[in-house]
Amino acid sequence: VTSTIEQCRAARAASRIFACAETEQKNQLLEEIATRLLRCSATIVQANARDMERARASGSAQPMLERLLLDEARLSRVADAVRAVAALADPVGETVSLQERPSGITVRRVRVPLGVIAMIYESRPNVTVDASALALKAGNALVLRGGSEARQTNEALTEVIQDALVSLGYPKAVVQLVATQDRSAVRELVRATEYVDLAIPRGGEALIREVVENATVPVVQHYKGVCHMVIDAGVDVDVATRIVLNAKVQRPSVCNALECLVFVASDAPRLLPAILSALNAAGCEIRGCDATRQLFPQAKAALADDYGREFLDKIIAVRVVASLSDAMDHIAQYGSGHTEAILSPSPEHVALFQRSVDAACVVANASTRFHDGGELGLGAEIGIATSRLHWRGPMGLESLTTMKWIVSGDGHIRA
Amino acid sequence: VTSTIEQCRAARAASRIFACAETEQKNQLLEEIATRLLRCSATIVQANARDMERARASGSAQPMLERLLLDEARLSRVADAVRAVAALADPVGETVSLQERPSGITVRRVRVPLGVIAMIYESRPNVTVDASALALKAGNALVLRGGSEARQTNEALTEVIQDALVSLGYPKAVVQLVATQDRSAVRELVRATEYVDLAIPRGGEALIREVVENATVPVVQHYKGVCHMVIDAGVDVDVATRIVLNAKVQRPSVCNALECLVFVASDAPRLLPAILSALNAAGCEIRGCDATRQLFPQAKAALADDYGREFLDKIIAVRVVASLSDAMDHIAQYGSGHTEAILSPSPEHVALFQRSVDAACVVANASTRFHDGGELGLGAEIGIATSRLHWRGPMGLESLTTMKWIVSGDGHIRA
Repeated sequence: VTSTIEQCRAARAASRIFACAETEQKNQLLEEIATRLLRCSATIVQANARDMERARASGSAQPMLERLLLDEARLSRVADAVRAVAALADPVGETVSLQERPSGITVRRVRVPLGVIAMIYESRPNVTVDASALALKAGNALVLRGGSEARQTNEALTEVIQDALVSLGYPKAVVQLVATQDRSAVRELVRATEYVDLAIPRGGEALIREVVENATVPVVQHYKGVCHMVIDAGVDVDVATRIVLNAKVQRPSVCNALECLVFVASDAPRLLPAILSALNAAGCEIRGCDATRQLFPQAKAALADDYGREFLDKIIAVRVVASLSDAMDHIAQYGSGHTEAILSPSPEHVALFQRSVDAACVVANASTRFHDGGELGLGAEIGIATSRLHWRGPMGLESLTTMKWIVSGDGHIRA
Repeated sequence: VTSTIEQCRAARAASRIFACAETEQKNQLLEEIATRLLRCSATIVQANARDMERARASGSAQPMLERLLLDEARLSRVADAVRAVAALADPVGETVSLQERPSGITVRRVRVPLGVIAMIYESRPNVTVDASALALKAGNALVLRGGSEARQTNEALTEVIQDALVSLGYPKAVVQLVATQDRSAVRELVRATEYVDLAIPRGGEALIREVVENATVPVVQHYKGVCHMVIDAGVDVDVATRIVLNAKVQRPSVCNALECLVFVASDAPRLLPAILSALNAAGCEIRGCDATRQLFPQAKAALADDYGREFLDKIIAVRVVASLSDAMDHIAQYGSGHTEAILSPSPEHVALFQRSVDAACVVANASTRFHDGGELGLGAEIGIATSRLHWRGPMGLESLTTMKWIVSGDGHIRA
């Protein structure tokens, strides 16, 4: 078995070659991957069946089996996603700024591939392909560490990607699956500062914390989405109800779903009962503060740790506060920096909220569910970053690039 | 003594307040700092005299004493630099992109302050003020860990900055000097992921490696500048000589000075002797490969570790290679990702070099010495990053910001 550090070294060497690939060549590669995924679907689905069998035998729970499954229908959607990435604009080579300096030199900042990306993830095998497509389109090499439960599926998928690479004359090492099954591989991967430029962990909070605690390479983090919505005085009750229902109930298990409603006291008597009734009718459990329960007695009493909690379920925390300023303090204390929203008819309140609230995405008069790579116009995303660096928010192709400075002179020397 | 983690927590709280400061208020603060630095110059210079005395008594070498010194003349230049930062455009609030999506929502990406920056540096006390000015202009809070040899000077400078903050109604904790003298403070600082957004170490390679090895917060790194210049066939010998002398001899001790010349063999007989003679005449020691010494017998034989070495002195490594491609391979092997240059009359060779070479700054037909915040148009810099993330190249105000996504709707929900 090749050691993880050797794989990282090979990735660095391969990345130097692949970084120079033209847009046309990269698109051709993605087409080739999509075609081969469908052509090899029987092999992949069989590998997945073996992973599923093993997972069932070891007593894995239904949600985990659901995440692990890769059947023909899902594989076909994965191939479509690869083609969709091929259709996106290539960020590499884009001139970000251009100026002629008083000294006479021309200074250009150009977008270039990041280099080598380490992806550490859990059971969903589609991540193997989704992440590869985005990383490749941005000119990067990739070292993948998937969950052990998806081992055979990931091996089959990686083989297809490597065959596509080789068929177009690129080194296999542009996309590699970590060879060893040792748990120490993750630690080795995220400390390979010579070879790895960015680590992207995707999975539960424990996995992400393990990566952050051990990493010496940069890490983009996404712990959780504790999303708030402030209901300011004066909003239309029907519009507010529609937005709250969309944000909370459409898909309660996702990170941009709503977890806490904050009402400004002055208009709460008009708005709170109507909105909470609608949530209740939609099957949502309500956990409120004392003021909430006075206006809506059906609410349960919120416990201290219900604020700042990601329920990922049809449960919502509710609080009534004296002012917009108090609402923003609540968010500063309990938010996770993911998505924070306000519904308000006041342009001043909206501007203050959008300026002051510190989160990857700040929404006004719309659902928190819009915080998503597709909805924000990125085409596809490799994840959402709640950390501030190197990236914040949905990670599309641009987030997988860095820049270099290009200086051009005509015999210029520095004075 | 307040613990370092308590100071970081206070910095986070202060940063939330300071992040909302308007450009005018931040400029007023910088003016106030500049004024107070001059008004309190006697106190600062006396504190520095005590640090100098202690350093002399403990037998510090002359270069270290030179870096530590802060007299009236230097302090006056420091105050000027603060005013120069006030005059720079404020990156905070800048709209980076704006689009209306098919769903009807408006999506804006806006530059916002990074948050809390930890600055870890050695003997130069001017860094205390230079770093503060840039960080403050970009709306950030700052935790400073200076060298113990500059302790009293740094305390006096920080007090001036804090007095200026308080006089304008901001919390002192916007700029703090680490209180404890414990070496463990650095480790604590760079692992405070809840409170610190970015660590910037400035100093020798050992200091930077210590920070990188220990940090769980993002770090911008600058190990060293091993800058190469490729002399391609056909260049004008006088122009090339002038550029090489500027790059190597003007200030040999800086990171963007030249450390290695790489000649393409076909035209080396014409170019190499003339250029190396000029370097020799300027007092520069030459260490070459066999082919170099055949064309220029005065050269010493280069040892294996002379390639990839940062001499920071009037010494240069020289190598003759068969082709431009071999020259780029030499750079890939020995470069430090700082500044790489080519002198060539061929637009094709220049384009290939600028596209393929992987470094923060790639220069054509000009001196490597242009890789500098001022020369590249950033106005001022807090350092140069040779890492790829979060930043690459000279770190001006923009490098001390991040972005957030602002979504505005009018009752929009996700389909």
